[in-house]
Amino acid sequence: MKTIELLNYARDAWTRGEGVREIPSAIDGSTIASTGSDGLDFKAMLDHARNVGGPALRKMTFHERAWMLKDLGLAIMERKDELYALNPHTGATKGDGWIDIDGGALTLLSYSSTGRKKLPNAHVLLDGELEPLSKGGTFVGQHILTPHQGAAVHINAYNFPVWGMLEKMAPTLLAGMPCIVKPATATAYLCEAAFRILIETGKLPEGAVQLIVGGVGDLFDHLTGQDVVSFTGSAATAGKLKNHPTVLRESVQFVAEQDSLNASMLGTDAAPGSPEFDLFIAEVVREMTTKAGQKCTAIRRILAPAQHLDAVQGAIAGKLADIAAGDPREKETQLGCLVSTSQRDDVRAKIAELVEGGARIVHGDPDAAVGPEGGAAISPTLLRADDPWAADAVHEVEAFGPVATVMPYKDIDDAIALANRGMGSLALSLFTYDEQIAGEFIRGAAAFHGRMLVINRDNAKESTGHGSPLPVLVHGGPGRAGGSEEMGGVRGVHHYMQRTAIQSTPSMIAAIAQQYIPGGPKRKLDTHPFKLTMSELEIGDTLYTDARTVTVEDIEHFAEFTGDKFYAHMDEEAAKASPIFEGRVAHGYLILSFAAGLFVYAPPGPVLANTGLENLRFLTPLYPGDSMRVELTVRSKSIKSDETGVVKWAVEIFNQDDELVATYDLLTENTP
Amino acid sequence: MKTIELLNYARDAWTRGEGVREIPSAIDGSTIASTGSDGLDFKAMLDHARNVGGPALRKMTFHERAWMLKDLGLAIMERKDELYALNPHTGATKGDGWIDIDGGALTLLSYSSTGRKKLPNAHVLLDGELEPLSKGGTFVGQHILTPHQGAAVHINAYNFPVWGMLEKMAPTLLAGMPCIVKPATATAYLCEAAFRILIETGKLPEGAVQLIVGGVGDLFDHLTGQDVVSFTGSAATAGKLKNHPTVLRESVQFVAEQDSLNASMLGTDAAPGSPEFDLFIAEVVREMTTKAGQKCTAIRRILAPAQHLDAVQGAIAGKLADIAAGDPREKETQLGCLVSTSQRDDVRAKIAELVEGGARIVHGDPDAAVGPEGGAAISPTLLRADDPWAADAVHEVEAFGPVATVMPYKDIDDAIALANRGMGSLALSLFTYDEQIAGEFIRGAAAFHGRMLVINRDNAKESTGHGSPLPVLVHGGPGRAGGSEEMGGVRGVHHYMQRTAIQSTPSMIAAIAQQYIPGGPKRKLDTHPFKLTMSELEIGDTLYTDARTVTVEDIEHFAEFTGDKFYAHMDEEAAKASPIFEGRVAHGYLILSFAAGLFVYAPPGPVLANTGLENLRFLTPLYPGDSMRVELTVRSKSIKSDETGVVKWAVEIFNQDDELVATYDLLTENTP
Repeated sequence: MKTIELLNYARDAWTRGEGVREIPSAIDGSTIASTGSDGLDFKAMLDHARNVGGPALRKMTFHERAWMLKDLGLAIMERKDELYALNPHTGATKGDGWIDIDGGALTLLSYSSTGRKKLPNAHVLLDGELEPLSKGGTFVGQHILTPHQGAAVHINAYNFPVWGMLEKMAPTLLAGMPCIVKPATATAYLCEAAFRILIETGKLPEGAVQLIVGGVGDLFDHLTGQDVVSFTGSAATAGKLKNHPTVLRESVQFVAEQDSLNASMLGTDAAPGSPEFDLFIAEVVREMTTKAGQKCTAIRRILAPAQHLDAVQGAIAGKLADIAAGDPREKETQLGCLVSTSQRDDVRAKIAELVEGGARIVHGDPDAAVGPEGGAAISPTLLRADDPWAADAVHEVEAFGPVATVMPYKDIDDAIALANRGMGSLALSLFTYDEQIAGEFIRGAAAFHGRMLVINRDNAKESTGHGSPLPVLVHGGPGRAGGSEEMGGVRGVHHYMQRTAIQSTPSMIAAIAQQYIPGGPKRKLDTHPFKLTMSELEIGDTLYTDARTVTVEDIEHFAEFTGDKFYAHMDEEAAKASPIFEGRVAHGYLILSFAAGLFVYAPPGPVLANTGLENLRFLTPLYPGDSMRVELTVRSKSIKSDETGVVKWAVEIFNQDDELVATYDLLTENTP
Repeated sequence: MKTIELLNYARDAWTRGEGVREIPSAIDGSTIASTGSDGLDFKAMLDHARNVGGPALRKMTFHERAWMLKDLGLAIMERKDELYALNPHTGATKGDGWIDIDGGALTLLSYSSTGRKKLPNAHVLLDGELEPLSKGGTFVGQHILTPHQGAAVHINAYNFPVWGMLEKMAPTLLAGMPCIVKPATATAYLCEAAFRILIETGKLPEGAVQLIVGGVGDLFDHLTGQDVVSFTGSAATAGKLKNHPTVLRESVQFVAEQDSLNASMLGTDAAPGSPEFDLFIAEVVREMTTKAGQKCTAIRRILAPAQHLDAVQGAIAGKLADIAAGDPREKETQLGCLVSTSQRDDVRAKIAELVEGGARIVHGDPDAAVGPEGGAAISPTLLRADDPWAADAVHEVEAFGPVATVMPYKDIDDAIALANRGMGSLALSLFTYDEQIAGEFIRGAAAFHGRMLVINRDNAKESTGHGSPLPVLVHGGPGRAGGSEEMGGVRGVHHYMQRTAIQSTPSMIAAIAQQYIPGGPKRKLDTHPFKLTMSELEIGDTLYTDARTVTVEDIEHFAEFTGDKFYAHMDEEAAKASPIFEGRVAHGYLILSFAAGLFVYAPPGPVLANTGLENLRFLTPLYPGDSMRVELTVRSKSIKSDETGVVKWAVEIFNQDDELVATYDLLTENTP
């Protein structure tokens, strides 16, 4: 294969860097690519992101950015063969590549969906409800989120060059922040190829993304409090970067995802022969071998009840013996190569540390020759620590390869203490069919772990597995794992935005957020809004209905018809005696039903159905003889697909004295 | 006054420290207290918090901890005279003391209310909705929050010794974390007196709170990733602490609230003579003089349109000339003392730096003698920077006293750039009646500020003012302000908890969270739940109703009665033509109304009223001839007061094939 010359993408131009070095293929050590970033003007790159990329992204709405993510994700999918062609050189099998390449594209698509469904078609994100701060309602509070006005610097690990880039890029761009991607050198060619696909879509505004294929030079010296650093890698490197004087001085937000001695635990109920025992063994072996164990979420510590330890060890060793390790291009290979021979040296050294620290090898030989000559293949290694409390190394030393240690626990408290002895992890799995065990264990250990799975016969088939971070769930963990979070749906978007508490009148807050706020201004429509398509409807558009009087006959009729004869509607004396009502009142559901009668436009049109209702509050009772009228206002619009979307309507029902009887948000499914 | 000997409260015992030093009164420099913490076993204090306080607090539910906060807040209120007696020695007037003492108690009460109304009566907090992760629904995700299992170390500033302690303590204890309070020495006697009141309530479990009246010795060496440091003070000290090797190595969560060059800005529309102009002047003067300007939120930079700069300067100076400065014990005193003569020296030095950096004094004489001899009184000083872009010092140097600088801006972009030139602030206020100006300015500047107020003639009367953090709004800011948040209602509680993504079956997640989860187990009731009081109702208790058939006559009758003749209910052909329905369907509101008819128990009882409804989703259309039945399950209970509470019921409506027709949460007001 011809050596690929990797280029930086700086200030919207592909740029050759100096200080060039060669990157070896994991398969046989031959040179796959050359790379270098010396001589780049890193300060100018930051300024370009801040002054060109940021403003361009902030001009787009969340929905526009979400559609852009969809285009990016589809582009990766369309051209993924180019990426799969490079994938084996990272040591990855085709299956490993799926996690990285398809997984990366799916993360973009998931974030596109989150953006369209959960974020407004606006520039400002509202956080939480309006906070009443005064009796008269002229002074209220609203938390808003706006994009940080700096650059996001993404420093990625070598193990998932595509997914690792995209899982950070998706929430960053959706938030409206530009980013500078710095992949790990060992697999930078695969990242660069994916990055190139993104650029060639032509969908990214100028300055939105940049790429550094090499060191970051003096970039950190130029960071400010508006920039965000998102780091994945070793605790040692994270510590150095967090400790950078500029990061400390400027309170630069630092998201770190670092080492993690993840554990998997077999419940005391799951004896050999139980479904959970078999599921546990299969999952441990899968985690040890997928991506040659080079996953930050991989299982390193295998916790088994003392009485089942031998059985667990035997079952794992038995399965490992059948694993075909070697050339990732071969179809039968189940365990590919480590990323490089130097990484293999590191794994061997770490295994030696584990052995020195109280564990012993019970299966495999890390020094055995496997796979093509010059390559970085390795066979899987299982260790055992009979006294895990005397073997600190097994809780502290991570051999980043197909390596894990079995160890016994005495009882549930011991298991909790051992799980937490890792001082913070990304993922922990528990195999049990006993809810009591799961409840006690998870509540006792959750503070130390970012994600926890309980797997058993009921959910194993549908489980996505111990090691798979999902875009809708947070990925990260406390303490040793970095103390940060990534992804988690909208939560991940928040990292790239600043929360600000706004205090003013409702109408001023509506003007600031450019969204409907309860109490904010409305625009009276001449046309019935159910006749208008989603693009014709504007936020704040309002239908004012006629009024309708509610009689005691209506109430009694409704009670007979529905069967709801609650005393507050039917018994004047009993209603008066309640601490809430002054006499019989109309049913809440009668009010809702009459409200629909007042605002619904009957013929077919863009409104397809009432699909839901939120935040309904009954505020003032409606007594017989009172009248009611409705103001129906477009509150927000979200897009599910090209064919369908959801309009959220603010509904306010008033009585004859203009007192609020009820408020709620009505959801309709619409054609766009 | 006799010298008060301050004691540490370590491991549930009042403990004399070594290395004693004297604390002078701000009024006249006489010794008010003596204090010291040398010789304490700081590691043992941390372990006591972790091993005694944490477990005890975690045994309590959120509601139990919320009631405890109420007791603490009421105890401060009852004994506040003791605190007001000490208050003047900090330099504070009685009005200043209100912010600190009553403000502190009210923060406890606000968090008590937040805990009872917004958090479950449980040990685990659910974060967000259940995430579907599989088609079959056996594998779902739920984010939960559990208390960190370490100690919270609170390092407080001298300016609000009571509020500063309580605004951190309230969310910490509510979260279920123990804390160690370290007040600033200059006013530690007032903090210690308030702390003593809390201890003497007898309501705090052992180990829940500890107090260090002096240095923290080697405490930081013993921190772990489960501990949290919450710091208020100077950026220099914050930087040193964040840089502590243990903090970096263990990824200790660090919440910092530090320097802030807060700005207040007059809109271009607010010419002299306008209500906003007068409001602006009054607020600036209030902020400069309250607490002698020693507030982290105080206005330091006064931004005025260039054409109004002279008018602004003149009006402020005019008001400042009438301010009575001096002995805080005197009723007529509007501006008390700085906390100490050394603090006064610092303010004078900072004013000199401002002058050197391009500003000039236009009112006041910081060197003038005011107030009692030996005391720390100072008169207010107004500076002016005619070219704020040439005067870096006014955006960087904080004179922590009654000191602010007026400066001109050219246009809105210049105003945004100047506001953001502070590189991160806690609070910014804007005085304008123009929504266009407010919208453009706030959207352009929000990323740099933690809280922003827009004040005008409509809300000034009800406004709580520029400088007042409120428990329900976040307090903190990006960059120079520390990059952190405090308070903000439930948001502040989250800082002391770990978020964990749980993946399992719904019923396993329900067992872990000990709360109702959609799809989780239910317990069939023999008694109708509307007959049971809140304490008798248990989470998961379920009423299974009979079924009712919905006929086409029902639909037509309902349409006639309510007026809702939407085609999907009335026109078979048109309904069929829609992409959603296979023919005419029952109205959503008809389904809701019939559901109530099925589950309501009519006679008077503990259920007083249906007050609302949330998260309604219509999932499967109900066609004429279909039947419906309801499962009504207790989802959660929250307590508003001793007399009243809210029960949230999960309502699930099924058709004859046990398909879900609709789900929602029903809210009822109940007697406990």
